[in-house]
Amino acid sequence: MRPMRISDIGEFGLIQRLAQRVTQAGVASSPPGSAFPLVIGIGDDTAAWRTSASLELCTTDTVVEGVHFTQETTPWKDLGWKVMVANLSDIAAMGGTPLYALVTLGLPQSTPVAAVDDLYDGMAWACQEHGCVVAGGDIVRSPIFFVTIALNGYTHETPLRRSAARPGDLVAVTGPLGGSRGGLEVMLRGLSVEPEAADSLRRAHRHPQPRLREGRILVEEGVLAAMDISDGLTDDLGKLMAASGAAARLETWRVPLPPALERAFPGQARSLALAGGEDYELLFTAPPAVMERVLARLPGSAMVGQVVAGEPGSVVMTDEKGQELPFRPTGWDHFRS
Amino acid sequence: MRPMRISDIGEFGLIQRLAQRVTQAGVASSPPGSAFPLVIGIGDDTAAWRTSASLELCTTDTVVEGVHFTQETTPWKDLGWKVMVANLSDIAAMGGTPLYALVTLGLPQSTPVAAVDDLYDGMAWACQEHGCVVAGGDIVRSPIFFVTIALNGYTHETPLRRSAARPGDLVAVTGPLGGSRGGLEVMLRGLSVEPEAADSLRRAHRHPQPRLREGRILVEEGVLAAMDISDGLTDDLGKLMAASGAAARLETWRVPLPPALERAFPGQARSLALAGGEDYELLFTAPPAVMERVLARLPGSAMVGQVVAGEPGSVVMTDEKGQELPFRPTGWDHFRS
Repeated sequence: MRPMRISDIGEFGLIQRLAQRVTQAGVASSPPGSAFPLVIGIGDDTAAWRTSASLELCTTDTVVEGVHFTQETTPWKDLGWKVMVANLSDIAAMGGTPLYALVTLGLPQSTPVAAVDDLYDGMAWACQEHGCVVAGGDIVRSPIFFVTIALNGYTHETPLRRSAARPGDLVAVTGPLGGSRGGLEVMLRGLSVEPEAADSLRRAHRHPQPRLREGRILVEEGVLAAMDISDGLTDDLGKLMAASGAAARLETWRVPLPPALERAFPGQARSLALAGGEDYELLFTAPPAVMERVLARLPGSAMVGQVVAGEPGSVVMTDEKGQELPFRPTGWDHFRS
Repeated sequence: MRPMRISDIGEFGLIQRLAQRVTQAGVASSPPGSAFPLVIGIGDDTAAWRTSASLELCTTDTVVEGVHFTQETTPWKDLGWKVMVANLSDIAAMGGTPLYALVTLGLPQSTPVAAVDDLYDGMAWACQEHGCVVAGGDIVRSPIFFVTIALNGYTHETPLRRSAARPGDLVAVTGPLGGSRGGLEVMLRGLSVEPEAADSLRRAHRHPQPRLREGRILVEEGVLAAMDISDGLTDDLGKLMAASGAAARLETWRVPLPPALERAFPGQARSLALAGGEDYELLFTAPPAVMERVLARLPGSAMVGQVVAGEPGSVVMTDEKGQELPFRPTGWDHFRS
């Protein structure tokens, strides 16, 4: 039997189906007693919620099939999880709390309905885990598949900024890096890696965690500068420094590595950790006294360098002897040929 | 000389260029004294603004090249205007006021930089005219071109709802319909139409207006049910009735037509007005006493039918003699084959 396609049920059949799905998952309306209750959810021209005096946050993130993922490496449900997490991670990078998501789907007519069901299950799963709600969206026909989420959140504190790093700050990350990239390499290259390590890296690629709790702890302890690591540490550190008008020394040997990455890629683990993206750990800077308090509260985190005066955006990498490394691994520019 | 392409300037060159563009247009930051001041705009992980106690609105709308527009019928600047207006119109349909937009661009590497400049000029133009701000967004590589906008707004009143129409209400629209579809037909079919009428219809297609002022007047006068007409009157009236669990009689001969449409399409103007989308007038229902006050304040608007008890979502069309018309023009379902 041919699987049911989007063209079989039409736009309204599809909207009804997906609305039902997020309702059943308990992520179509705000919880009772919410401080920001959802007044209008799926099915009207806009979503609406009541606000009190706070700082409203809004972010958006998109994945395009063939550019950001393939079906071979990311099943639909994991894709739904990942695109929601990419947005949650941006809210985490401000020290905020997520509230309401609008989901835009660009779908070819031949898309199997089961694929969209799975995608929504993955998004609903991320919403369940992190207390946010699917409040609406838009579905459009498209020759290629893409998903865009716009996610609103809030904070009552001073949000973490990319522009707030200052010379004298220490640089740190909330957890080990390179696992997602390692998982991708294992899958794409079909490497023969011990099964337990391979599983662990695949999971890192398909099921990353947004560091919402960690972001709020950073704010509580007085950290001012942070961003999430989506494009790779060296690249994102360069962006953080560019936004702050400062430079950084990155002590590459201090970057924490997932044990599975070291087992699977004995000689390459460190460069995968420096260049690989999509781990969604937070990158932050703070004066030493603040950093000490943060590291004590977040045992998974690690100091990896210093902010220094210098060419804005430049990053010098050093090895354990303090020697400058001769090259800088290039990050992702999605457009340069 | 080959025009400069996105691949020549890269992601960061492009972001810088576009940020500069919206800053110069005065639509990158909130005006002094704003009740909802923008605290973080373009360049960080999320946008952020301060809120007071109000109802927050959020909507999203997407256009995909080859599906929703072609370069032949919609130049880039007009496309920028139109996609922003599609979102502004959703805020208008709630009786709200727009605040902050996040813009997602899906771009092939070969996209000319001048095209993206023009697109942004068109979006900035719509923001200038309607007092909203581009607060950030996301740029991704994509094999096909698309734009998604997520737009936040607010209201201090009861928002207009799709689900609030009741039997006994009268049905009305805020202005003439079919101009946008007429303009598209003139361009696609290369019809020989008198130049003034052709110009007027092309303008209706390329430069529609969001009915923000009208939406707020509806709310002030106590209207409860409305939506914007983006997919065509009969189709959208069906959706309004489905959401309200009611049926409607549509007196087709009362639907106001743009004079240019009647001149250019003598025999077809009315069916173009019933089936054509993208005029972005508001469709609303209200009890007769409320409707009388609204029609007095909005001289361009017209009563076009009644809400009745019946099969939810069904629409019966009648001619000037009260005879039922034998068929219902089908609306747009973007997925049905």
